Amino acid sequence: MVASGQRAVERCNVLGSGGFSDSPDFLYRPYLGNGHRATLDQVASWMEQAGMTTRIDAAGNLVGRYGGGEKSLIIASHLDSVRDAGRYDGPLGVMLGIEAVAALNGRQLPFAVEVYGFGDEEGSRFPAAMLTSRAVAGALDPVALDVPGLEDALQDFGLSTARFLDARRDAADLIGYVEAHIEQGPVLEAEGLALGTVTAIATQLRFEITVDGIAGHAGTNSMALRRDALTAAAEMVLAIEEVARQGPDDLVATVGRMAVGPGAPNVVPGLIVFSLDVRAGTETVRNQAAETIQQRLSAIAAARGAGLEVRQVHDLPAAPCNPVLMDLMDQAVAATGQTPRRLVSGAGHDAMMFSPITPTAMLFIRCKDGISHNPRESVTPEDADLALRALTTFIDLLEARYA
Amino acid sequence: MVASGQRAVERCNVLGSGGFSDSPDFLYRPYLGNGHRATLDQVASWMEQAGMTTRIDAAGNLVGRYGGGEKSLIIASHLDSVRDAGRYDGPLGVMLGIEAVAALNGRQLPFAVEVYGFGDEEGSRFPAAMLTSRAVAGALDPVALDVPGLEDALQDFGLSTARFLDARRDAADLIGYVEAHIEQGPVLEAEGLALGTVTAIATQLRFEITVDGIAGHAGTNSMALRRDALTAAAEMVLAIEEVARQGPDDLVATVGRMAVGPGAPNVVPGLIVFSLDVRAGTETVRNQAAETIQQRLSAIAAARGAGLEVRQVHDLPAAPCNPVLMDLMDQAVAATGQTPRRLVSGAGHDAMMFSPITPTAMLFIRCKDGISHNPRESVTPEDADLALRALTTFIDLLEARYA
Repeated sequence: MVASGQRAVERCNVLGSGGFSDSPDFLYRPYLGNGHRATLDQVASWMEQAGMTTRIDAAGNLVGRYGGGEKSLIIASHLDSVRDAGRYDGPLGVMLGIEAVAALNGRQLPFAVEVYGFGDEEGSRFPAAMLTSRAVAGALDPVALDVPGLEDALQDFGLSTARFLDARRDAADLIGYVEAHIEQGPVLEAEGLALGTVTAIATQLRFEITVDGIAGHAGTNSMALRRDALTAAAEMVLAIEEVARQGPDDLVATVGRMAVGPGAPNVVPGLIVFSLDVRAGTETVRNQAAETIQQRLSAIAAARGAGLEVRQVHDLPAAPCNPVLMDLMDQAVAATGQTPRRLVSGAGHDAMMFSPITPTAMLFIRCKDGISHNPRESVTPEDADLALRALTTFIDLLEARYA
Repeated sequence: MVASGQRAVERCNVLGSGGFSDSPDFLYRPYLGNGHRATLDQVASWMEQAGMTTRIDAAGNLVGRYGGGEKSLIIASHLDSVRDAGRYDGPLGVMLGIEAVAALNGRQLPFAVEVYGFGDEEGSRFPAAMLTSRAVAGALDPVALDVPGLEDALQDFGLSTARFLDARRDAADLIGYVEAHIEQGPVLEAEGLALGTVTAIATQLRFEITVDGIAGHAGTNSMALRRDALTAAAEMVLAIEEVARQGPDDLVATVGRMAVGPGAPNVVPGLIVFSLDVRAGTETVRNQAAETIQQRLSAIAAARGAGLEVRQVHDLPAAPCNPVLMDLMDQAVAATGQTPRRLVSGAGHDAMMFSPITPTAMLFIRCKDGISHNPRESVTPEDADLALRALTTFIDLLEARYA
């Protein structure tokens, strides 16, 4: 059978069916669960059909190796899923890697191709995420493995936390890392594009913001005299939106959680706590936006006589993609007849672990309505075909460069 | 001992101490609890010292009667409290009624004075409120008594739901109803006034408002393409505030509760449900504000492509005070040397049950920082003295009118 994006999509659909899920009611494939075990067997057999030798590494990743060069190009994504998941977030990248190898049809490259199916990207089973790609990239602090239940689950798989870090690959043995993944956002679809070249995995700041007003009786506190924490917070939410809208395309700022206290219909709110998540392709853009936002919030609080506390709870650096590989990916996209489009990945991916140690590229594939982490996740076979063509062209271009 | 507002305050402080509360840690005097029982005994003895005969009516209200006219002026407020209450919300009106009778010092009026200490205004024990004043005013639907636990609690008090409605007073036997109460708001204090004449107990509309957006990944949904339900709701909260601020002084509108779904820091909110409470002295003002607000919300939803559902959950009519009695109260306030100030009561009071059946007046007394339903509730003895003088003058003026 000829390699195709359509087959990659169909195989994702197979993996989205009952035998590969830990729940009978929906797709849920947590790291080291029964569905994961069945998936490893199935995907390994597909890898072997494509001409790869396979192994499970010390972190429970499935690794298919093709060809005999000294160094390797890694094509990877993850096989685990969130609860009530879609079928393409993760597996599509692994399936496209297998198709790309199948498309070589035995032809040898000056480097090996290794397709990784990572075990834990989503962190849907244990309170940790990307453990397995962190281990392979040598970015895993062993204390991160001190998670309740992990050791037992690893032992059931014939693995252990003690040997987990043996999954590490030496950067000197790699020529690069490439990951194809659904966009999980609406940008490509909105622009009528099937594919996009990722420039970076966004850097992220997260804050918890507290606004203090004075709680009071909704009937007896006149408008002029009340100090409503919610109206102050509402102004802040709009200021945050405005700052993000005025920034570059890759800047996003989100208030996703908000708690209103005391929270009764007949009481003027006295205390609001809300989250703020700011992401951008570069720390410069992100930090400038965060600073502007904080200035705006302070001004709003001052004007309304409200108390304000801004506490930073999270700071993730950006993972930039490699400029040379981005150019190759643009060329590969152009070769499919698509207009190249560069965009920042607002979501995290295994690729971010490799960006510090080896040239890294990511190819985004359009998904319907930008929906992800949801059974309605959808990718067309046509787009998957275009992605496969881009991926094989990317490998050809890399080969030409490497030779 | 001479009647005084100071003594009224001191007696409230006595009732705020341990023996009159159902909690050892704070003041909580629910209807028909042990603290309520002890309070009835104590207050009855104060009533008797002031020259009244006392009884407990069929609803558990304490009634002190002074003088022998055919008809009665009711001076009333409530003896129950919320959990972790202040000492003056309710009891101060009853204590001032007792002081007003004591101040008569045996002098007979052309009408009887009956001081009522209502049992259940707050509704802090059973899921119902103002059961006892509703019974006295003949405004109680018997089905409202079908509340879990009420029958048992009444029986423990020697009462029953079967006889509860016997507490009803015939409107023909009443010449009017007057209630003194702390303002529970900041208006009088802000204007440097000790007293205010209530013009009406506000009419109220309550809505539950649902805003639909599209939930999505906070990293992958660009600002331009997201449909954030929270930013839409934030604009609505500010529009509501603006409409209320632009209206007359007695108009208030409050968003007191807001739920944000799904409510994760890394997810753009897709669903917001919030409460809207609109109050004013007249239904005209209230309804016009509610309509303007709904137009504004619709426009915001349309502009943002958000779904909007506005569901009315509550409609309370206004309880207007009697114009003649308001004039008498203004005169009584002026006689204390205070500038008369009329204001709407945004909070509900027992008085609202009497407004439909007998001329009703309310006197508001300044409270510190507008705080109520809180142990920090505070009234000065000086203000209570002024209130007592206003109340006795009001009775004198009524006597002159009645003669």
